[in-house]
Amino acid sequence: MLAAWIRIKYPHLVEGSIAASAPVFWFPSTAVPEDIFDNIVTRSFVSFGCNSDNIAAAWSALEQFASSEQGRSHLNSLFKLEQKSFLQTPEDVQFLKAFIRESFESMAMVNYPYPTEFLAPLPGWPVKVACGYFNSTGQRTAEEHATSLYSIVNLYYNFTGERETLCVNPDVCDDSAYGALGDPLGWPWQACTEMVMQLCGSGPPNDFFWKDCPFTIEGVIEGCEQQFGKIGYTKQLTRPDWAILNYGSYYPSASNIIFSNGYLDPWSGGGWSLKPQTIGSLVSIIIEDGAHHYDLRGSHPDDTEAVKEARKLERIYIGKWIHEAQKRFKKMHKHPRRNTKSFRR
Amino acid sequence: MLAAWIRIKYPHLVEGSIAASAPVFWFPSTAVPEDIFDNIVTRSFVSFGCNSDNIAAAWSALEQFASSEQGRSHLNSLFKLEQKSFLQTPEDVQFLKAFIRESFESMAMVNYPYPTEFLAPLPGWPVKVACGYFNSTGQRTAEEHATSLYSIVNLYYNFTGERETLCVNPDVCDDSAYGALGDPLGWPWQACTEMVMQLCGSGPPNDFFWKDCPFTIEGVIEGCEQQFGKIGYTKQLTRPDWAILNYGSYYPSASNIIFSNGYLDPWSGGGWSLKPQTIGSLVSIIIEDGAHHYDLRGSHPDDTEAVKEARKLERIYIGKWIHEAQKRFKKMHKHPRRNTKSFRR
Repeated sequence: MLAAWIRIKYPHLVEGSIAASAPVFWFPSTAVPEDIFDNIVTRSFVSFGCNSDNIAAAWSALEQFASSEQGRSHLNSLFKLEQKSFLQTPEDVQFLKAFIRESFESMAMVNYPYPTEFLAPLPGWPVKVACGYFNSTGQRTAEEHATSLYSIVNLYYNFTGERETLCVNPDVCDDSAYGALGDPLGWPWQACTEMVMQLCGSGPPNDFFWKDCPFTIEGVIEGCEQQFGKIGYTKQLTRPDWAILNYGSYYPSASNIIFSNGYLDPWSGGGWSLKPQTIGSLVSIIIEDGAHHYDLRGSHPDDTEAVKEARKLERIYIGKWIHEAQKRFKKMHKHPRRNTKSFRR
Repeated sequence: MLAAWIRIKYPHLVEGSIAASAPVFWFPSTAVPEDIFDNIVTRSFVSFGCNSDNIAAAWSALEQFASSEQGRSHLNSLFKLEQKSFLQTPEDVQFLKAFIRESFESMAMVNYPYPTEFLAPLPGWPVKVACGYFNSTGQRTAEEHATSLYSIVNLYYNFTGERETLCVNPDVCDDSAYGALGDPLGWPWQACTEMVMQLCGSGPPNDFFWKDCPFTIEGVIEGCEQQFGKIGYTKQLTRPDWAILNYGSYYPSASNIIFSNGYLDPWSGGGWSLKPQTIGSLVSIIIEDGAHHYDLRGSHPDDTEAVKEARKLERIYIGKWIHEAQKRFKKMHKHPRRNTKSFRR
């Protein structure tokens, strides 16, 4: 987003931008649907062979287990939970479900064709690997559903096999799907202040999660007060309209920006365009098998044709921007003028 | 300038701008010649019948008078100076010359075809009236030269005939050609901080003043320290590059801005374009007989054809911007989408 925004505000300083996977319109005052993130997560998993009914059914299986003490004890053991994050009441299933949901969502983001370590160490096409646990079409027992969910969590958090336990209750744990991004409170603080993005699930058929829509600013503020109240957060710091007020929800004057998005990247839902198109010198590239900013990664022997094509286009545009800039500099230096005489008519 | 700049930075909030007489490029890092202001002042007076040789010669006459005590006494009486601003040394002629120069410069700015009171009460075409004092072609005495200069000062400062004396030494006087703009320190403070504009005279043939070029930032800072040092000014507050860094010295992405300039307005020298032209939806209008933002004034029976034509064009563009905005609003409201279902493919 910063790449797009600096070109928008300082086109005289920056010749052009590659805004890769930038959800520039993902703010409450825009038309970005609040449930599109999970819709695309679902699209990604289904396109790699997941049976979405299995996943939707798996949440019910968890609730079923969580409703009895024996079932909770089974989940605590199945998910190898640290004792401090044990499920102790039926309601505790909520934090377990949220924790698993984050694995799905994060894996869709980093679904690259070769092993990476961006958010967590993962195999190539991790979504495809995960879908191995969810592709059966026959009847499944609650036990099988729960085990599949454990498998995906274990894949995301423990691909290297080094972890013996998981901590899933955010009130007492530090584990986070985005821990590798650095300060674990960095993004949550942004999301509480200037990066307020409407995100929630609608459940089937939109997505294979459960309905927690509608998204509300009041809900955001409540969560932020809980999380950051003690370090000085007040609701005045939540400015859901700031980004759109400052940068716009449409760009009547922008130029020389490539908005590239992966068709399988959940963040693409808030992108400049959902389809390939060119308006003036604003260009949308959709990478058919791409996850989150796949085109920004270094080249790799296992790269897909789609990303190679996208990068090739980007190089052509960058070359064009540089060429235009050089032409302008040359022209400028041919006609310096420091006093009126040199151009008086 | 603010009109152009708000459209440049917030095109999603402002559909278009009429930037009338905006010297948007008049900052040290640009190619705007430092001596163009006085060149256009001269152009304006000459085009209304002034003999520029007479004016150039008149400064010498003043210096001649100022070199003797008797001559200074004559000037003090001729210019009806308040005692506290009497010329007392030969060097004092400098502040008198600067004071007169401001009358020329200001009159060029407000040279409208009908009586106005923008900077001072003045008759219609004040430059033409002033040139009545400077249009002779025969030999003139020092006395006649000095009297002509007094006449122009008296015209600018005393058109209503109410003033009996003038105060011309800025160190002890409050009189200012720009007093009517409000706070007399407002513009000087701007000029000391973010509105640093390269301005100086080259003398003939560029202009009918005298050579005080080159303009230097050091010179600006020195003057500002003198004027504002006691209220906290320090040279760090002078940011000659700020405006261009923030807004640019060219607009690769701007749209829907009309830059109108009077051909006789000294400020036009720093305008977006010195000639009529259209680049994309940026439009330059040059009003052939126009002074400073003449087109922004209300209509008047004595309006010239050139300004009527300019305003007509401006109305057409404003209409076009509104029409485009209405089209966009209509389209937006036809396709609201709040959940993914409404546009899922």
